[in-house]
Amino acid sequence: MLLVKKFGGSSVADPERIIRVASRVKKAVERGDQVVVVVSAMGDTTDDLIGLALRLTPCPSAREMDMLLSTGEQVSIALVSMALHQLGCGAVSMTGPQAGITTDGVYAKAQITGINPERMQRELGNGNVVVGAGFQGISASADITTLGRGGSDTTAVAVAAALKADLCEIYTDVDGVYTADPRVVPDVRKLEQISHDEMLELASLGAVVLHPRAVELAKLYGVPMVVRSSFNENPGTLIKEVDKLEQAAVVTGIAHDTNVAKIGLFDVQDEPGIASRIFLALAAENINVDMIIQGATRGGRNDIAFTTSRDDLSKALEVIHGLQDVVGAEGVCHAEDLAKVSIVGAGMVSFPGVAAEMFRALAEEGINIEMISTSEIKVSCVVDRKDVERAVQSLHARFELHEV
Amino acid sequence: MLLVKKFGGSSVADPERIIRVASRVKKAVERGDQVVVVVSAMGDTTDDLIGLALRLTPCPSAREMDMLLSTGEQVSIALVSMALHQLGCGAVSMTGPQAGITTDGVYAKAQITGINPERMQRELGNGNVVVGAGFQGISASADITTLGRGGSDTTAVAVAAALKADLCEIYTDVDGVYTADPRVVPDVRKLEQISHDEMLELASLGAVVLHPRAVELAKLYGVPMVVRSSFNENPGTLIKEVDKLEQAAVVTGIAHDTNVAKIGLFDVQDEPGIASRIFLALAAENINVDMIIQGATRGGRNDIAFTTSRDDLSKALEVIHGLQDVVGAEGVCHAEDLAKVSIVGAGMVSFPGVAAEMFRALAEEGINIEMISTSEIKVSCVVDRKDVERAVQSLHARFELHEV
Repeated sequence: MLLVKKFGGSSVADPERIIRVASRVKKAVERGDQVVVVVSAMGDTTDDLIGLALRLTPCPSAREMDMLLSTGEQVSIALVSMALHQLGCGAVSMTGPQAGITTDGVYAKAQITGINPERMQRELGNGNVVVGAGFQGISASADITTLGRGGSDTTAVAVAAALKADLCEIYTDVDGVYTADPRVVPDVRKLEQISHDEMLELASLGAVVLHPRAVELAKLYGVPMVVRSSFNENPGTLIKEVDKLEQAAVVTGIAHDTNVAKIGLFDVQDEPGIASRIFLALAAENINVDMIIQGATRGGRNDIAFTTSRDDLSKALEVIHGLQDVVGAEGVCHAEDLAKVSIVGAGMVSFPGVAAEMFRALAEEGINIEMISTSEIKVSCVVDRKDVERAVQSLHARFELHEV
Repeated sequence: MLLVKKFGGSSVADPERIIRVASRVKKAVERGDQVVVVVSAMGDTTDDLIGLALRLTPCPSAREMDMLLSTGEQVSIALVSMALHQLGCGAVSMTGPQAGITTDGVYAKAQITGINPERMQRELGNGNVVVGAGFQGISASADITTLGRGGSDTTAVAVAAALKADLCEIYTDVDGVYTADPRVVPDVRKLEQISHDEMLELASLGAVVLHPRAVELAKLYGVPMVVRSSFNENPGTLIKEVDKLEQAAVVTGIAHDTNVAKIGLFDVQDEPGIASRIFLALAAENINVDMIIQGATRGGRNDIAFTTSRDDLSKALEVIHGLQDVVGAEGVCHAEDLAKVSIVGAGMVSFPGVAAEMFRALAEEGINIEMISTSEIKVSCVVDRKDVERAVQSLHARFELHEV
């Protein structure tokens, strides 16, 4: 098998942990697997480097930050390779550029535009482990660019896709993906497998074992992934395209997100272009909008409400107050003590009663629903933050997701 | 003017010093100069990285060490660029590969094989300061290689040569090149200028303000250099080709080196190939041999003596004992408490009495000369280590090098 194994910063935080990673890789090599390791910067390295930069300037240039931060992964790949050598395992480290990873050149949040796997393939063919730097690549102008949040996961998936790897293994500090947050629900069950779409919804909805970007890429290229613990040999959760004929679970898991704020505009003019005006203005300020609800038109007036993260609330309010006259809104309100609870399941598309079942469960708990949003494989409700844990627990029980 | 300014690790050891470097560069920019800055890794970074590697393996692979250590300069260039930005100065950092520095691919002690200055020229043309990483380059196989000892000085000179810079400034913690070691001679004089050849001899002879490798390269390409302090604005010492018509000093300076050991072989067979056998065997073990003296032949037998550094003595003795029978030597002796004192001056070629004057000065001090070696511009004597400071002092006085 050709495996891509991704280890995050905490897995390579010190020489002892690096040796543990190397031993784990060696076992796979001894089983006859070809292995590409993708690593992040050691422990707090990235934060330390950012701290150094901020002692020089409050607003470092994005290009120079990428130049600075990319050294973190370069240190890791050299040390992991040395550890493998020490265990008698052939290994070659590769920076993003050496691994042939090209990007669009947008500093701090570059997108991978291509991977030339030639050199990695050559080294694998020579019987070496390839130890590649996550989070980085090189632009067409030969500048070093980093991929931003979730960067190393994305590197691992992209490398797996380019090499047509049999599996992309993401090593983390939990055993896999659970039916709900174990801190909220005591009897959660670890999922044996989950579809890319479901994982994508769970990842976007606040179950942060994996960055949505990486999942999206894996879905696009059909890369099978597994999320598993770097501390034990448990099999983890497999993320793969679910066979259409296979019986998909109606509800796979419950996600929740406590970082939710809502803004409402009353009595907005009901004219074409009003909504686009509002949301383009928010996008221009890089404010991520999640749910959008537009009420039924009453006499040429509309209510529009949307949710965003609490971090973005004050910026969003500024934008909205600036637009209030332009869009002819009578009033603006906001709430920040909100949360979102979602049920996710690839099978719910064929069971129309699932959403109603969710609403009933919440109603029986006396939990008020502020907003609702649905997709083919999820139903999300915005509720009061104080109610969200109870909401998760009751839905977990209602859909019988507990350990059997 | 187009200037290359090289700052060593202690000049960029912390954010405060980095800001000082940036301010200095900014002044040059404000005077209308184009500037390329070449920097080393911050302070103890290199040692810290080596320490990390040794916690993983007693014998790290040279390729992975280069991968690891080259991150040190990359951190420095990013931070120096940020500091320049903060001062309102356009700046672009460049790794060795980005600066177009190619090497022969010998890890840990690569030689620069070429520099493609295109990108540096473009950035200079755009009005930017170029901040280049010293000590590193990229091999034909796209591997990162470091240049070994004196690497950043060598980078600076090579970049200056490739860009046809008007001056290569080496910033250090002393004011320039002195007539002798200030710790030995109280009334040393700072030299205003010195030829590449003289500097080369001084550098090789133990006055370690500048690595001989860098001086050699500067001589080869006729790059004018200055050695000056990073702590003040003093003009430093200019190193340049001395005009043949110009009156060169008979003696420019006195160098000394206390790291000298001697090995002697008695009654070696006087046959062609014996000397080459000895010194090829030493070279194969990477033992640097300095002076070699072969005595006059008496009845088909010879005495051969040579000096090496004390660090290499035991390894050299091993080699020599292994060869003793092969070369037919009757005996081997060694001494390690030796030192070398040298007078250097481009003008001495036209004054044949200089060597004799040196010997007389030493004799008058009662200092015994063990070995002598001469070149066109220097005379070196090996003496007892306990005598070397007195030797330097007396020669400094005899050739009237004191401050006027």
